[in-house]
Amino acid sequence: MEKLKAMALYTDFRKELIYIEKELENAVQSDSPLIQQASMHLLRAGGKRIRPIFVFLSSKFGNYSMETTAKVAVSLELVHMASLVHDDVIDNSNMRRGRKTVKAKWDNRVAMYTGDFIFSRALTSIGEIEMASVHRLLADTMLEICKGEIIQFDYQRRTDQSFRDYLRRIKRKTALLLSSSCELGALISNADDEVVRRLRNFGYYAGMAFQIVDDILDLTSSDKQLGKPAGSDLLNGHLTLPILYIRNETAFQPYLAKAFDGTLSEKERAEMLRYIRESGAIEKAHEVSDLYLEKATAEIRSLPDGDAKKAFEQVADFLAKRTF
Amino acid sequence: MEKLKAMALYTDFRKELIYIEKELENAVQSDSPLIQQASMHLLRAGGKRIRPIFVFLSSKFGNYSMETTAKVAVSLELVHMASLVHDDVIDNSNMRRGRKTVKAKWDNRVAMYTGDFIFSRALTSIGEIEMASVHRLLADTMLEICKGEIIQFDYQRRTDQSFRDYLRRIKRKTALLLSSSCELGALISNADDEVVRRLRNFGYYAGMAFQIVDDILDLTSSDKQLGKPAGSDLLNGHLTLPILYIRNETAFQPYLAKAFDGTLSEKERAEMLRYIRESGAIEKAHEVSDLYLEKATAEIRSLPDGDAKKAFEQVADFLAKRTF
Repeated sequence: MEKLKAMALYTDFRKELIYIEKELENAVQSDSPLIQQASMHLLRAGGKRIRPIFVFLSSKFGNYSMETTAKVAVSLELVHMASLVHDDVIDNSNMRRGRKTVKAKWDNRVAMYTGDFIFSRALTSIGEIEMASVHRLLADTMLEICKGEIIQFDYQRRTDQSFRDYLRRIKRKTALLLSSSCELGALISNADDEVVRRLRNFGYYAGMAFQIVDDILDLTSSDKQLGKPAGSDLLNGHLTLPILYIRNETAFQPYLAKAFDGTLSEKERAEMLRYIRESGAIEKAHEVSDLYLEKATAEIRSLPDGDAKKAFEQVADFLAKRTF
Repeated sequence: MEKLKAMALYTDFRKELIYIEKELENAVQSDSPLIQQASMHLLRAGGKRIRPIFVFLSSKFGNYSMETTAKVAVSLELVHMASLVHDDVIDNSNMRRGRKTVKAKWDNRVAMYTGDFIFSRALTSIGEIEMASVHRLLADTMLEICKGEIIQFDYQRRTDQSFRDYLRRIKRKTALLLSSSCELGALISNADDEVVRRLRNFGYYAGMAFQIVDDILDLTSSDKQLGKPAGSDLLNGHLTLPILYIRNETAFQPYLAKAFDGTLSEKERAEMLRYIRESGAIEKAHEVSDLYLEKATAEIRSLPDGDAKKAFEQVADFLAKRTF
């Protein structure tokens, strides 16, 4: 996180990011003390603000206006935040980014309506944009994210899923919102159709790579680095890409079964993580994320030269190398 | 319900209502069997479809198009349905319209994402309308409804609330969505500004009257008529208008305390309901709803003559007299 923030990217957009933080804070103001606290708790947990960054970068390919772009950027970050709060209810997750989740600090009901509130604020923020196409795209994206939530739930603790099932899931969980962030940024600044198309594709491919790496890091990082127990995805019943390669190995299956039924001891969790790290599955998963990154990079290459293009190249490079 | 459906209003809009039911069914189709079942369960529980009716009637004051109007009508009914599913989680309600609620039949998590799914479908349905003002209005309305959910939660089991608190709550719970139904119907058919304003006001006043009567019926109807225990509002910790008149009466306070802490016996519930019915509070609450109805009627009076105006007059008349 800190390393990421040290990137030139974050320096270039310092003014915009400060503005966004302020707007996010304004957006979650509420007369209800409880909702205000829950929202601020969530906001203060931070995040990489990748969606706002993508919106800003993309809108630089057209007629850039900070105020207009900020409305869309705030809206997309709020959609992301809201979906996290509801996800934590579905996953029964107690920790995120080293902090208690809303559902853990308060309860499921508070998490539900905090999410509803933040979703609504996302809509009113983007509501100020006078382009029907923008609202349609956001609505379609929210529907797909929501379907993703449900699919994730339906596939919980199922070991009979295919690579395609996994890819479809992360598309909805992550790639679509990043893709829409790019597309919306380009749309609101009236960028050329071809540029809009390339940015949308870039966001999609970068998002797929991003989520695969995220799923790898859940298995290779320390509890401290993650701010939650390593292997949380498995403990929550989610099969990620590396696991798909080894799920049928006899020595691995007892770990998987115990992780899924909640009986894995701390010692076994450490053994399981060691097994996964030494299995070769991590490297195979990296190959897949690299494929997506290459596709992402190819989309940027043909974009008009400029600072925004350079910044997107830097993002792709960061995504390829990140280890945190 | 059946009496309502026998109204000329429902005969006049037979074609539209059949179309709407079909579209509502299409809207909740999902690849996930669970979400599909939960949504259909909700849809089959029925409802008066008052929001769609208000949208249709209002759009008759401009250039009416059934397809366009239906998109907005479907969207508003879906917003209403989604908010009911989430409300039942907040209220921990197990019965609604004589059927188990989604949270009771499945669980809170399924209810949460069924609501999310239906909300998203509401957005994609209205997303097809190419008017930014429509999206802005819906976003603002959803935010207020959501704030209403939260306020309702904050005020649960509080006896120190004012008449203004109550009115503010039912405004967000019911009146705003009915007001927006009228406003959106008029907007999409490009009705005159003055007509839009009057219809918005009509929806608001009619909505206030409607909810007050609903709150009265919760205390005066039988369990069978309601499809849930009479007095449910109190059992859920919600203070409604009639109760505000008698909450400080010494003989009533033990009932109130027991209803709020969940220790009211069946015998005591019957006694409490009898107390309320004989207290004069029901009549006082009716006077308030009549005031709102007069205001609603005044708004209709000045609208251009025609079938839609007559139908709205009939609606107001029905609202005044309904006993079910």
